[in-house]
Amino acid sequence: MLPIARVGPGGSSLLEAIFTATSAVCVTGLVVVDTATHWTPFGQVVIMLLIQVGGLGIMTFVSVVGLSVLRKMSLRSRITAAAEVKSVGLEDVRGLVLGVVGTSVLIELCVAVVLSLRFLFGYGEPLGRALWLGLFHAVSSFNNAGFALFSDNMISYATDPWVCLPLAAAVILGGLGFPVLVQLRRYPRLPRKWVMNTRLVLAGTVVLLVAGAVYLTAVEWSNPSTLGPLGWSDKILVGFFQSVQARTAGFNSIDWGQMDSASLLGTDVLMLIGGGPAGTAGGIKITTFAVLFFVLVAEIRGEGTVTVFGKQLARSVQRQAITIVLIAVAVIAFSTVILMLLTDFSLDALLFEVISAFATVGLSTGITAAIPPGGQVVLMLLMFIGRLGPIAFASALALRQRPSAFELPIERPIIG
Amino acid sequence: MLPIARVGPGGSSLLEAIFTATSAVCVTGLVVVDTATHWTPFGQVVIMLLIQVGGLGIMTFVSVVGLSVLRKMSLRSRITAAAEVKSVGLEDVRGLVLGVVGTSVLIELCVAVVLSLRFLFGYGEPLGRALWLGLFHAVSSFNNAGFALFSDNMISYATDPWVCLPLAAAVILGGLGFPVLVQLRRYPRLPRKWVMNTRLVLAGTVVLLVAGAVYLTAVEWSNPSTLGPLGWSDKILVGFFQSVQARTAGFNSIDWGQMDSASLLGTDVLMLIGGGPAGTAGGIKITTFAVLFFVLVAEIRGEGTVTVFGKQLARSVQRQAITIVLIAVAVIAFSTVILMLLTDFSLDALLFEVISAFATVGLSTGITAAIPPGGQVVLMLLMFIGRLGPIAFASALALRQRPSAFELPIERPIIG
Ligand SMILES: [K+]
Ligand SMILES: [K+]
Repeated sequence: MLPIARVGPGGSSLLEAIFTATSAVCVTGLVVVDTATHWTPFGQVVIMLLIQVGGLGIMTFVSVVGLSVLRKMSLRSRITAAAEVKSVGLEDVRGLVLGVVGTSVLIELCVAVVLSLRFLFGYGEPLGRALWLGLFHAVSSFNNAGFALFSDNMISYATDPWVCLPLAAAVILGGLGFPVLVQLRRYPRLPRKWVMNTRLVLAGTVVLLVAGAVYLTAVEWSNPSTLGPLGWSDKILVGFFQSVQARTAGFNSIDWGQMDSASLLGTDVLMLIGGGPAGTAGGIKITTFAVLFFVLVAEIRGEGTVTVFGKQLARSVQRQAITIVLIAVAVIAFSTVILMLLTDFSLDALLFEVISAFATVGLSTGITAAIPPGGQVVLMLLMFIGRLGPIAFASALALRQRPSAFELPIERPIIG
Repeated sequence: MLPIARVGPGGSSLLEAIFTATSAVCVTGLVVVDTATHWTPFGQVVIMLLIQVGGLGIMTFVSVVGLSVLRKMSLRSRITAAAEVKSVGLEDVRGLVLGVVGTSVLIELCVAVVLSLRFLFGYGEPLGRALWLGLFHAVSSFNNAGFALFSDNMISYATDPWVCLPLAAAVILGGLGFPVLVQLRRYPRLPRKWVMNTRLVLAGTVVLLVAGAVYLTAVEWSNPSTLGPLGWSDKILVGFFQSVQARTAGFNSIDWGQMDSASLLGTDVLMLIGGGPAGTAGGIKITTFAVLFFVLVAEIRGEGTVTVFGKQLARSVQRQAITIVLIAVAVIAFSTVILMLLTDFSLDALLFEVISAFATVGLSTGITAAIPPGGQVVLMLLMFIGRLGPIAFASALALRQRPSAFELPIERPIIG
């Protein structure tokens, strides 16, 4: 970024600028400098635009890739697929891009209005600043970026539902993914019309939000540095808000450096799972996790085929899901080891940081700025891999799928 | 255990006795009291017998279960399977039990003789004690138990190859598993006669041993509390010995409480994978890990079927492997969270302890005795689940496998 973006004399260091730009365009939200005080208003506008481009980019990219995958399918599956494509609004690229942009802008504007009104009347901010705060945080939340214009992120507003709930709503909607939003708009009251993707994402989102909120609230209930001093309704609000942020927006209304190790580990799981595909959320995606879950259920029930909501799950999808998870785990383990060798931070802080970067969450125990340059480069690579890797990989896998020319004899090694 | 087993006045506490017995019969090797000084010779004999019973028990149990699974197969697969069964010596239960006992005793005696000679001539122990030390550690090593009659486990012998290498050999042989040992004896120089199970276990063992030794030696090379003070050949001996112990014997020739976090994390992976099936090793088993690896390779190469050493991998086995790994990860994560809530130890120490118990390894950063009773009960449950769970589960899954009665329409959610 240019010197003009930087408060005070001189420009930012190159690494600070590149790290911030990467974090913004990958909608991660990890920062090495304070967004509120380090950057000028110009710099903050640049960050907002990078977030918007990153969010729109990934939504259209994934949807378009999904479209080409469907087009490359065999005739028979294409006929089935055509109905799905139509019902999720993926007919043509131009309509799709317009739909993505329109949906994003509409939701962002609604959230911006609510937030602006609250900053205007609740906190007496001048009109111009209230509008700017509303717009920035609406963009940052719908795109699951987690950048905030306050030095303590959202901690000052931890107990204000008029700030937290609109942010949470934008985060959840962005995290559902574009295909789900389209289906919800078209058939809001007809769940039987929803395709498997929509059902998995909605059910998974509800389960993860509730489980995460209950878990975090319970673990931190009497932690004097986090939820301890709050009243019970505020405890629940903060617990819910942080559960939402793990899907994968990364605003924090509490100091994650003070959270119990058990909260960090539980949040690691939530962050790794992430949100719905073709949305602004990161992680391995709810669908990937759900596919493994249903494989597990089918195996325990001794069923030959995997059934999900009355439909059969394609075999190729099962193997794709395993592959994505194995590679994600390998990347995370490898990066964690590298950071362990580069720094003296504890495993729970580093694992949290690595998963936060990989799943483009942006939550941190506060160690990001203290990690040496080599480690920060690892985090940047993780953001890119986490943002583009799974979908690029999944689509490449889907396109390259070919049947084997001949059958080999089958063998069964002993498992377990 | 009886008061007679305990040195000094009074009996052991019930928890100490139960924990030690569980650790012995599950061939884990985690201890809450010092085996060398807490127990009388009578108590030590009881421990050795429990180890022997536990090791023989699991080997015969898994082999017999494998046999029944094969018997329940469809006619066509049974014809293929029959050849496999014959070639791994699983024709009948009686022959199998005799084979397991004979093989175990033979290997244990060989190792006991070598160790006894070393203790007799190398360290000037009296004949009786030298024989006892040789026998106990031979049983403990072949059964991958990791109990030692020295208060510092094997640290005093860290640089003595005449102690470390026989122990390592016994650990590796026990960890290959009975079916592999039978095939190696029958066709020592005919790899093309080996079944997939044998090939996977042997290849996996070599890869994991070498990778583990290189990794641990490199990470600890200049750690002043571990390998730092040693000469380079001793560094390699200790690194190799500890890599062997992760498969899953658990002798330690170095203080794991002083190891780098990166070594702990790397060893977590090695311990979780464990050894070969139907042997004395724990973990999810090399075959389970290898199956997932080959699924990954097939997926990356875009192949419809998974090929392993020129044979096709059965689909049902792929799903079993996924199921085992998912459950193992869930059990480990859940137990780690519980221990985090019960204690103040760091994530790396607790994760290491939990995986060590689950994979019946017995390595520890030294926190076992300091964990409160509730946490020790969790560790005991982990040993049982880790020892019996995977095979019981895998065989139940294999036996309950039934084809679905009708075909449902297939759907593809978006992955990644
Ligand atoms: K984020
Ligand atoms: K062991």
